[in-house]
Amino acid sequence: MSLNSYGHLFRVTTWGESHGPALGCTVDGCPPNVPLEAPAIQHWLDRRRPGQNKMTTQRKEPDEVEILSGVFEGRTTGTPIQLMIRNTDQRSKDYGEIAETFRPGHADITYWQKYGIRDYRGGGRSSARETAARVAAGGVARAALAELAPGIDVRGYMVQMGEKHIDRNRFDWESIDTNPFWCPDPGAVPEWTDYLDWLRKDDHNSVGAMIEVVARGVPAGLGAPVYGKLDTDLAAACMSINAVKGVEIGEGMAAAGLTGRDNADEIVMGESGPEYTSNHAGGILGGISTGQEIVVRFAVKPTSSILSPRRSIRKDGSATEVVTKGRHDPCVGIRAVPVGEAMVAAVILDHLLLDRGQTGGVRGQIG
Amino acid sequence: MSLNSYGHLFRVTTWGESHGPALGCTVDGCPPNVPLEAPAIQHWLDRRRPGQNKMTTQRKEPDEVEILSGVFEGRTTGTPIQLMIRNTDQRSKDYGEIAETFRPGHADITYWQKYGIRDYRGGGRSSARETAARVAAGGVARAALAELAPGIDVRGYMVQMGEKHIDRNRFDWESIDTNPFWCPDPGAVPEWTDYLDWLRKDDHNSVGAMIEVVARGVPAGLGAPVYGKLDTDLAAACMSINAVKGVEIGEGMAAAGLTGRDNADEIVMGESGPEYTSNHAGGILGGISTGQEIVVRFAVKPTSSILSPRRSIRKDGSATEVVTKGRHDPCVGIRAVPVGEAMVAAVILDHLLLDRGQTGGVRGQIG
Amino acid sequence: MSLNSYGHLFRVTTWGESHGPALGCTVDGCPPNVPLEAPAIQHWLDRRRPGQNKMTTQRKEPDEVEILSGVFEGRTTGTPIQLMIRNTDQRSKDYGEIAETFRPGHADITYWQKYGIRDYRGGGRSSARETAARVAAGGVARAALAELAPGIDVRGYMVQMGEKHIDRNRFDWESIDTNPFWCPDPGAVPEWTDYLDWLRKDDHNSVGAMIEVVARGVPAGLGAPVYGKLDTDLAAACMSINAVKGVEIGEGMAAAGLTGRDNADEIVMGESGPEYTSNHAGGILGGISTGQEIVVRFAVKPTSSILSPRRSIRKDGSATEVVTKGRHDPCVGIRAVPVGEAMVAAVILDHLLLDRGQTGGVRGQIG
Amino acid sequence: MSLNSYGHLFRVTTWGESHGPALGCTVDGCPPNVPLEAPAIQHWLDRRRPGQNKMTTQRKEPDEVEILSGVFEGRTTGTPIQLMIRNTDQRSKDYGEIAETFRPGHADITYWQKYGIRDYRGGGRSSARETAARVAAGGVARAALAELAPGIDVRGYMVQMGEKHIDRNRFDWESIDTNPFWCPDPGAVPEWTDYLDWLRKDDHNSVGAMIEVVARGVPAGLGAPVYGKLDTDLAAACMSINAVKGVEIGEGMAAAGLTGRDNADEIVMGESGPEYTSNHAGGILGGISTGQEIVVRFAVKPTSSILSPRRSIRKDGSATEVVTKGRHDPCVGIRAVPVGEAMVAAVILDHLLLDRGQTGGVRGQIG
Repeated sequence: MSLNSYGHLFRVTTWGESHGPALGCTVDGCPPNVPLEAPAIQHWLDRRRPGQNKMTTQRKEPDEVEILSGVFEGRTTGTPIQLMIRNTDQRSKDYGEIAETFRPGHADITYWQKYGIRDYRGGGRSSARETAARVAAGGVARAALAELAPGIDVRGYMVQMGEKHIDRNRFDWESIDTNPFWCPDPGAVPEWTDYLDWLRKDDHNSVGAMIEVVARGVPAGLGAPVYGKLDTDLAAACMSINAVKGVEIGEGMAAAGLTGRDNADEIVMGESGPEYTSNHAGGILGGISTGQEIVVRFAVKPTSSILSPRRSIRKDGSATEVVTKGRHDPCVGIRAVPVGEAMVAAVILDHLLLDRGQTGGVRGQIG
Repeated sequence: MSLNSYGHLFRVTTWGESHGPALGCTVDGCPPNVPLEAPAIQHWLDRRRPGQNKMTTQRKEPDEVEILSGVFEGRTTGTPIQLMIRNTDQRSKDYGEIAETFRPGHADITYWQKYGIRDYRGGGRSSARETAARVAAGGVARAALAELAPGIDVRGYMVQMGEKHIDRNRFDWESIDTNPFWCPDPGAVPEWTDYLDWLRKDDHNSVGAMIEVVARGVPAGLGAPVYGKLDTDLAAACMSINAVKGVEIGEGMAAAGLTGRDNADEIVMGESGPEYTSNHAGGILGGISTGQEIVVRFAVKPTSSILSPRRSIRKDGSATEVVTKGRHDPCVGIRAVPVGEAMVAAVILDHLLLDRGQTGGVRGQIG
Repeated sequence: MSLNSYGHLFRVTTWGESHGPALGCTVDGCPPNVPLEAPAIQHWLDRRRPGQNKMTTQRKEPDEVEILSGVFEGRTTGTPIQLMIRNTDQRSKDYGEIAETFRPGHADITYWQKYGIRDYRGGGRSSARETAARVAAGGVARAALAELAPGIDVRGYMVQMGEKHIDRNRFDWESIDTNPFWCPDPGAVPEWTDYLDWLRKDDHNSVGAMIEVVARGVPAGLGAPVYGKLDTDLAAACMSINAVKGVEIGEGMAAAGLTGRDNADEIVMGESGPEYTSNHAGGILGGISTGQEIVVRFAVKPTSSILSPRRSIRKDGSATEVVTKGRHDPCVGIRAVPVGEAMVAAVILDHLLLDRGQTGGVRGQIG
Repeated sequence: MSLNSYGHLFRVTTWGESHGPALGCTVDGCPPNVPLEAPAIQHWLDRRRPGQNKMTTQRKEPDEVEILSGVFEGRTTGTPIQLMIRNTDQRSKDYGEIAETFRPGHADITYWQKYGIRDYRGGGRSSARETAARVAAGGVARAALAELAPGIDVRGYMVQMGEKHIDRNRFDWESIDTNPFWCPDPGAVPEWTDYLDWLRKDDHNSVGAMIEVVARGVPAGLGAPVYGKLDTDLAAACMSINAVKGVEIGEGMAAAGLTGRDNADEIVMGESGPEYTSNHAGGILGGISTGQEIVVRFAVKPTSSILSPRRSIRKDGSATEVVTKGRHDPCVGIRAVPVGEAMVAAVILDHLLLDRGQTGGVRGQIG
């Protein structure tokens, strides 16, 4: 049992602090003979990397991944894959005041209360920088999926930033990679840009976001009926991401407001198997994939590191006010997009492996 | 690794189908010397039991729990506690048509696709009846909490049924147990009653619900900063419940719409330690409890078993229409209340045990 | 994580005490569609059952197994299989003295020291009766092996009882089931019989034993190179059996006395693949099966329950002498034979499932 | 679940191949606030390091450990500790023939059969070099034990090398560190030296060894009665070490030859609690520590890498002969001593943490 791991057969353990020498992950259980080289992982890391545009933190790090084990002559060997990313931009500064103060909305205080020791440099283990290791592991998961189930495609995007929502009528898959928000509604981008600029510069504020991740091409039959449900693992994977406060599948929280007649996805027989007239279920019924698109959504809270002063206390209990200067994302949700994709890819690979382990991948026939 | 288990040190595995001879759970890792007798567990099962009023399924079963192991002379011994509930009301009937048909919105089809075999009697393992075992396990968790951390109180209630929401200004803890909805707003009860009656009798329909569970008295310091987060485990625990489609902590999905200034819980020094001016975080920061109320919410979809006909297919691929007659809850969310409570109680106990294992329960001092 | 479980994908949790209402096991991860009915499991339980002859304890229990879940119309469904055995022969007696006394060589004292509570009736959880649940689980494993890998055969027998060893030149597979010792050397049986009679009746003593379990037909490629080694799991499985003090594979402890030249199993190409000129390795190289016979041996200590008085203490620290009257096996090793078989069968099935999960069961070609 | 990990709460995952850029381990679950710096770990690594004397492989590597995470200002923070050792002495050579050939007695063939890919440079993951990571993890375990339970001392030594056994009458704790065999019998050292010299130079052979590890000061009450037994975990930990073929506790395999009267450890009341008149049990009764010395023994087979030619096959099935030139230990058992110590230390720490998690460390009183 490890509290820093996820996955059953495809098992990832991340390690490292934001201001230590390095961070990374141990990826255990990747099938053998999967083509894998560092650039393929780097590709996904580059999507998450800060400092790319003014919408994200100005901390500039190459986030260059090294494969230390588990790969031989360009293929995985079935042994643990160790991925390491050196921390290069650790600005030295005087942490005197920060070391004694708890920033509101951060894990500073709870970490201290639990462990009685705290790496106060940039959040330590609680830093969003930890998610770089998840994205690297997601790169391995994608490489394995490409080999084992080439039809599967996992894509994430932002559907809401603060009060601003996308217009689903303008949804455009192609546009996602063309704007700094991973926003699938090109019409929303100018407004979002202005809003975030204003928030950061004038309002000294930050804002939350909603991310949606869709997995297409997932075969029916992945998951399990009770605790090892595909949706349970997706929920855990997303909720475990820094700053995430809620997660839902398909209709999600809105299902509470629906009637059974409205929520039913009727089944019809298609050419190559069962089809559904709708996808309220988000591609999962009774914990098991239906073969439809799997739709996961999660909410990222606004970062607590803002320039506006907030009341707090010091370790000695004395009152203080905290203003977070420095390089912080006004909307950490933006960088959560590649992280969410990585987590969903890892969960799906894991269930593919589990499924062939437990059932041999045999399917009940229909038609 | 078991796909039918939850918990790290307090580990519960449920077993059993809705129409088999019995169902139950193995509870491993309960601390020794906890006073435990069957009636204490029965108390919680009785809350979940169907057939109590017209709001829930008319299937009438005593759901009587037997303790088969792990308890000696009224105290737990530290060995696995086996709890068994006999299935007594398994009406025999002709399953001919049902056995060949997939009910829309049910796990019938995915279960079949995955396993190539299906216990078609009442949903088998996918039946909501499985949650009786969770409630029984929750009873053990509560008994252990009462011994180890007597200040902790876990309570659930319904805050929404379809389009109808409670009015939080009328929130009344005392009223929760006095109505069949576990509704904390006494003013809403008459309207909810009429609505559900109409839905069931006239509209032949069902409806979703939103459940909220609050844990009070949880000390600061439970959880972990990354995957073993308290909120990750709560999310997984709730998402693993039958028919749940979304789960959130504190502000939850609404956090996507907030700014950092609005969402900040400022910290002040109280008489016995840190206090917060608000609880947007829902009692968890960076995966670790703050000492505030822990607030979890989850959405239960409307049951797919309705009297209105829905299109579907048979095993042979032919088209059919399904109308579910029989004893089904128009709002399964009602019975999800005691289930959610049980899951939250189990997660909190588990993290109490984990915390003393990993840190010895030592806390960083403040003030 | 459960301290009462074994297996990765084929996961068994046993529960129950010797004098509680019942004992049993939850078997999770059995593949679906395996033909399984109670008599098939009963067959193996009957081998272990006490009271069959004068060589084992006279406690007479039918040890009748009930399948409570996971099987539908004679086939496994992929859900947890719950097996229950009622305890029927719980003679009531006055435990006054026993409850206060620690029997030397038993877990009485350590159990008390750890948990501060003790089920003193017959050893509670530490009783050899727990192994009935293992044998039942082994019956499920065998049923699954018969379906998935019909060529695999797992057989156990006794090779040593106290100072008496079998003569391997007289080894006869057929004779194993024809004598009460599961002894493969028919020539040794009369002498063993006399010896055990004398030990029990005249010497008021007990004796240890060495069990060997051989698995034939296991394909090459099961296991893993480091901790998830096939031999690691076999060692853990056997060492976890009541009263076992040592376990070895192939040459085992004797390997310490050999040279590299003597210990080498040379490889030659056979008609259907690689063959070995010898099997010092016991069928496992680098944690992975070679395709040869897998040979596991484990030592069972003599039971501490003897009629000869031994010095001990009471809970209050006062000195006493213990003489164990009652129905105890003079050589518990006899009944360890079916238990060892069951554990080995479970480990092999588990690794078959793991292997197809992690590698898809693909094999590197030779020749 | 990870097949490259051991431990429940103190969870170690090793990674890395003998000829990759680095190897190491992720240590998760180390309690916070344990003083830890690289030299303390290096101390134990230096004991295992090859090239120290003519008795071990001449591969010369500094095996310098780097702490990449989990430690802040000289103390553990409760987060994963990543330890990395760079591989520096990877002599480049022509692997042409080796890449196509399976060395008898090695995992070459089984690894290939399982994974269909093989890192043929020096054994890859199957190399004894992997044990360096275990020793590093053991260094962390020892640091934590020093903080949590300072009375515990874990020591290993060799008691047999081939046919040569120590004379226990000459047992001298002080002498262990003064000879290259970690031999506790100073009288045996000259003979062992000559024998090993002859074996290597003249006989072109290798030899097995028996290692004993003793843990003193372990409190009564660690472990569990069934699968999570202290002895089960010790057996798995030792059997998982490269080249180990058997493991035993206390009397071990010899218990098969004893009678109950001989094997009984009688209990008497000592000044500070129960004492035993002997220690046949090796400090563990019913899976739980008694407070006596814990005695574990394991057999290491002779290395298969010898200068004498052995028959084998190539990948294409053709026959060949293998002579292993190069830098190999004539007795790998020597370097298994610090590895065994490390594994035992890790298991004991793990059970200390488990015990306080599950029972709170409360003990039943005696006297």
